[in-house]
Amino acid sequence: MIKAGIIGATGYAGAELVRILLRHREVEIKWYGSRSYVDEKYASVYRNMFELVEDKCLDDNIEELADQVDVIFTATPQGYLGGILTEELLKKAKFIDLSADYRIKDVATYEKWYKITHQSPQLIEQAVYGLCEINRGLVNEDTRLIANPGCYTTCSILTAYPLVKEGLIDPNTLIVDAKSGTSGAGRGAKLPNLFCEVNENMKAYGVATHRHTPEIEEQLGYAAGEPVVINFTPHLVPMNRGILATEYASLVQKADGTYPTETEIRAAYEKYYADEYFVRVLPGGECPETKWVEGSNFVDVNFVLDERTHRVIMMGALDNLVKGAAGQAVQNMNLMFGLDEKEGLELVPCFP
Amino acid sequence: MIKAGIIGATGYAGAELVRILLRHREVEIKWYGSRSYVDEKYASVYRNMFELVEDKCLDDNIEELADQVDVIFTATPQGYLGGILTEELLKKAKFIDLSADYRIKDVATYEKWYKITHQSPQLIEQAVYGLCEINRGLVNEDTRLIANPGCYTTCSILTAYPLVKEGLIDPNTLIVDAKSGTSGAGRGAKLPNLFCEVNENMKAYGVATHRHTPEIEEQLGYAAGEPVVINFTPHLVPMNRGILATEYASLVQKADGTYPTETEIRAAYEKYYADEYFVRVLPGGECPETKWVEGSNFVDVNFVLDERTHRVIMMGALDNLVKGAAGQAVQNMNLMFGLDEKEGLELVPCFP
Amino acid sequence: MIKAGIIGATGYAGAELVRILLRHREVEIKWYGSRSYVDEKYASVYRNMFELVEDKCLDDNIEELADQVDVIFTATPQGYLGGILTEELLKKAKFIDLSADYRIKDVATYEKWYKITHQSPQLIEQAVYGLCEINRGLVNEDTRLIANPGCYTTCSILTAYPLVKEGLIDPNTLIVDAKSGTSGAGRGAKLPNLFCEVNENMKAYGVATHRHTPEIEEQLGYAAGEPVVINFTPHLVPMNRGILATEYASLVQKADGTYPTETEIRAAYEKYYADEYFVRVLPGGECPETKWVEGSNFVDVNFVLDERTHRVIMMGALDNLVKGAAGQAVQNMNLMFGLDEKEGLELVPCFP
Amino acid sequence: MIKAGIIGATGYAGAELVRILLRHREVEIKWYGSRSYVDEKYASVYRNMFELVEDKCLDDNIEELADQVDVIFTATPQGYLGGILTEELLKKAKFIDLSADYRIKDVATYEKWYKITHQSPQLIEQAVYGLCEINRGLVNEDTRLIANPGCYTTCSILTAYPLVKEGLIDPNTLIVDAKSGTSGAGRGAKLPNLFCEVNENMKAYGVATHRHTPEIEEQLGYAAGEPVVINFTPHLVPMNRGILATEYASLVQKADGTYPTETEIRAAYEKYYADEYFVRVLPGGECPETKWVEGSNFVDVNFVLDERTHRVIMMGALDNLVKGAAGQAVQNMNLMFGLDEKEGLELVPCFP
Repeated sequence: MIKAGIIGATGYAGAELVRILLRHREVEIKWYGSRSYVDEKYASVYRNMFELVEDKCLDDNIEELADQVDVIFTATPQGYLGGILTEELLKKAKFIDLSADYRIKDVATYEKWYKITHQSPQLIEQAVYGLCEINRGLVNEDTRLIANPGCYTTCSILTAYPLVKEGLIDPNTLIVDAKSGTSGAGRGAKLPNLFCEVNENMKAYGVATHRHTPEIEEQLGYAAGEPVVINFTPHLVPMNRGILATEYASLVQKADGTYPTETEIRAAYEKYYADEYFVRVLPGGECPETKWVEGSNFVDVNFVLDERTHRVIMMGALDNLVKGAAGQAVQNMNLMFGLDEKEGLELVPCFP
Repeated sequence: MIKAGIIGATGYAGAELVRILLRHREVEIKWYGSRSYVDEKYASVYRNMFELVEDKCLDDNIEELADQVDVIFTATPQGYLGGILTEELLKKAKFIDLSADYRIKDVATYEKWYKITHQSPQLIEQAVYGLCEINRGLVNEDTRLIANPGCYTTCSILTAYPLVKEGLIDPNTLIVDAKSGTSGAGRGAKLPNLFCEVNENMKAYGVATHRHTPEIEEQLGYAAGEPVVINFTPHLVPMNRGILATEYASLVQKADGTYPTETEIRAAYEKYYADEYFVRVLPGGECPETKWVEGSNFVDVNFVLDERTHRVIMMGALDNLVKGAAGQAVQNMNLMFGLDEKEGLELVPCFP
Repeated sequence: MIKAGIIGATGYAGAELVRILLRHREVEIKWYGSRSYVDEKYASVYRNMFELVEDKCLDDNIEELADQVDVIFTATPQGYLGGILTEELLKKAKFIDLSADYRIKDVATYEKWYKITHQSPQLIEQAVYGLCEINRGLVNEDTRLIANPGCYTTCSILTAYPLVKEGLIDPNTLIVDAKSGTSGAGRGAKLPNLFCEVNENMKAYGVATHRHTPEIEEQLGYAAGEPVVINFTPHLVPMNRGILATEYASLVQKADGTYPTETEIRAAYEKYYADEYFVRVLPGGECPETKWVEGSNFVDVNFVLDERTHRVIMMGALDNLVKGAAGQAVQNMNLMFGLDEKEGLELVPCFP
Repeated sequence: MIKAGIIGATGYAGAELVRILLRHREVEIKWYGSRSYVDEKYASVYRNMFELVEDKCLDDNIEELADQVDVIFTATPQGYLGGILTEELLKKAKFIDLSADYRIKDVATYEKWYKITHQSPQLIEQAVYGLCEINRGLVNEDTRLIANPGCYTTCSILTAYPLVKEGLIDPNTLIVDAKSGTSGAGRGAKLPNLFCEVNENMKAYGVATHRHTPEIEEQLGYAAGEPVVINFTPHLVPMNRGILATEYASLVQKADGTYPTETEIRAAYEKYYADEYFVRVLPGGECPETKWVEGSNFVDVNFVLDERTHRVIMMGALDNLVKGAAGQAVQNMNLMFGLDEKEGLELVPCFP
């Protein structure tokens, strides 16, 4: 059995890790870390876990934790892992970081968007960006440190990736209009996240400044083979879970003046995703809905070609706490331990 | 592998059966019955099942179905199974009926509340009321026909059962005020179930006339050892899943003039539920919440003793589609085939 | 023009007062009190008021405020007004207190349920309980201090009042099962009120201990002519606004052994409410829905007689922020200044 | 008093007209038309109107209706008014059509997008597109026929109009990503609009084919002085009311190579909207939220300039049933009868 520890086990992403790992046949959770609830029973913080988890929450003690477990998940605020991680710790345990600390290779970009001084920039290089569908070659038993991708970024990147990679769209025309359920805002007791403020309401936020922007740009830049600058606008939706990304880009005109056809675009999606269990390319004409992936590790994607504007509208949907956080972290863990990628993740979406 | 067929696979309860059985290690679904969607792909009716279910929906053909499978689930309108079931069919396959056709032993009572003439009253006697926590002795490999309890009834009965059984409350003072998510109303396209009619709204319905009333009365009558007459009021709540039952009853005064204490009441719950995996008696002071059992087969129960009124307020919460329908059906199936009751049902509640 | 001041103008009830008073033809708001947002523009706290309210929030200064205005609304925590109100202030301005400080005549009862020492018990006697439909005789131009009834209590009392007053039900059998939208919990940034905790969830709280209990008991006790002890259970519902009270009581058997008929019960409701604009007794068979009164000052009531149990199930619905708080406060104000009770309150319910 | 008739009074837009007109001081509703509910009391179809509306629903009889009233609102399916309207009827009464029949000047475009043959193309020319903030000069006492703009279009156009009109953005780069509450889908009993299908879900629909596209293009084309082709993507959001449009366009580079500044963009908004009561340009940095305009006739707009991409992100929010339908219709009516534009429309947004 793989021994796992979670730091930040009482946030929503941490709780989702618990939900998934409890039914993972090869993993045992040995450490429920939560600075806010030290010594309280985990099941009193999340009563859905009553009679399922008997452990109490533990304070952070990264040294002791690394000695006890094989893998550590950090579902912590930005800067936390960056501030304590060392080569020595990485020798003791594998780390899967659900924060953004090691996602962006360029430290200056990270520091500019996050307004944090990175405390361990020397470790960034060895971190693997854990978007398995794109980076599978790098996620394996040798991997010590995974930068688990953000929820918006996972959805945004996977939705556009094949068309960028194949050069069918101009990546600098890309506009990502993303909509997220409220669990993405975390479990902090803040006025804007109160029921009465969110319910029956819809708004954009972080317009042109959201921190997931450079992460999307970096990854799509690798696919494009050149730097990419995009627009990304997140929105808050009155639902618990789910992200829907609606993405717009101009098709690249061919030498003969024509544009990519629907068949060519579909072929690009199939080329990259036909063998990917967790990415479902929907039949033509069907728009992804967040509800159809709820509770599962699936991403549903599809597109519509608009011949009037020579643009393609791409759509992707995932559960922000699963494929957008905890599920993807477990998917990475599976590959880091030589397990079947799907172990513990064959979750059937829950409807309604 | 147990071969299973579902009639009514495209209703919400049928779809939940599919969700659960797909991950049940001993079962294979051989027949997705749906009169409304014959020849359509099941996954086009429930797109969450895309790439998980390849089958098409089949028309009802009970004879053929009974020849092909070991167990048939009927998630059908009242009167359907009652109208076609025969001794011969029961010899070919086990039946688990999610409708009310065989729940009530007294045909006259059934016909009065359901306003349907029962077409196979001779089969009622052998039907077992499949509330395993109470009727476990009767649900076993010899059982051919299960009357799977209603969603409201499962919650209402389990919440009050120990106190009725132990004679701590007067069952004829019982008032059940129940609140249900909207999936209980089914997937029929009816105006009162439209989003804009249900959302931001709350109402009672079927006051003093709801069909689950005699079912609760019959079962609690067995526990009390005498006929019981109660009040049951269902309410519609703007959420997808979940039933919360708040129940009120007068404590029975003892010969010495005192009333049962909190300790005695808790002991009664523990007596019946301490060994029941699916019933969780919460710690003192905690009120059950529907969200803490969502997606799982758990029923959470608890109570508050009011010394001012000598009444006890009992509370129970479950997921109407799982313990209130499909999960309980699978629990019954497991016992009918000699499997561990929990097989396929170790679903961790999903929060948020 | 009546000059009005609001202390606690940035809570949900205070904001609703602003919404209503802005369109009241005889009132001008002169003081937006909010300790938490002193010197901030009111419209930056409630952006719905952008370009409608130009004022900034002011700190509490009850002396200065009482000098400037004719009427002061206090939408403040329990104990606030009780701690500062004096006879002298009452000579300067009329007070309408939306807290519970002056609702309960018996100081000991207040202090026991609220766990607060009352600082001005000598003023309780002159406070009028402002449930106009019952206490209209006492709400007039001579009234200096109104104890504005609670949201749950307004709904609970008005729903049962005629039957208690007419002796048709035994008030000590009364059970009030009430369901409230989340705005009743206020705008404080607390974890249990976060969107993801409330949405898709339902629970009871404060069982057998909620502070509105003695208020209901006192008022129904006046109607019954004797002390009344009841059960009251509040529930939290995933919607913004609305309270639904479902109430159960045993009918009083007559000397001849019969029970009150549906006609007699309806006659009792008509007797008290036929001339009340804000109480709508629905046609037989229709259950009140919170959505049908949303945004308005109406209370919709109705009942079902259950001949099997000789109980009557009474139902009432109101908007907790309007008839349950701000609307009722304005209704009281109108009567205190000799205006038409409906002035500013002819709000048509908003559907959907 | 202006006598008004409504055809389609039992749809959501029709019901909102009733809500508004009931409190309009110069209007009396004389005719509640509803083919589906002929002879039923209006208040039994919309119980929020209990004791407020005593009338019964009437069948369609346009001749009789035109004889009786001064103004007729048609909240009817596409093609209805186009199929019955005549010059003669227009002489008898003013018409305000909430459908799309007379919104698009080019018949071929209408017929292509709506797949309906227009039955009265000769009347299109005299129809005025009733977006008062842009077309005020044409909405006056001489106007006989108003094509009341669509909900999405009102929001989409007003959000971008100043920047198109002033030539600050390239209109052919415009992408409108719009999100709507579910009341926009109407009160028809259709499966996709059931509570359990919409709640906790989000999806795009009608991608690249939605009928509001040519309407936006036509109006923005007038502003641009040349044909405009855009992308418009509507989404369904789990809330009752509200539309949020997030719009993207490239800034037009000036001769000196620079781009419009934030100050210049804000000046453009102020130029067109500073005197418009119903359009609120929010302070810099604040994103419009649908909840802040709910129940009112306001449109809140704002923008963010992205210097990285030289695009501007424009945002607009309105209540689809008020400014997006019934409120705008009344605004047009006011101008057609020489009344103050705001009469009956000084609705304060309702929060929460």
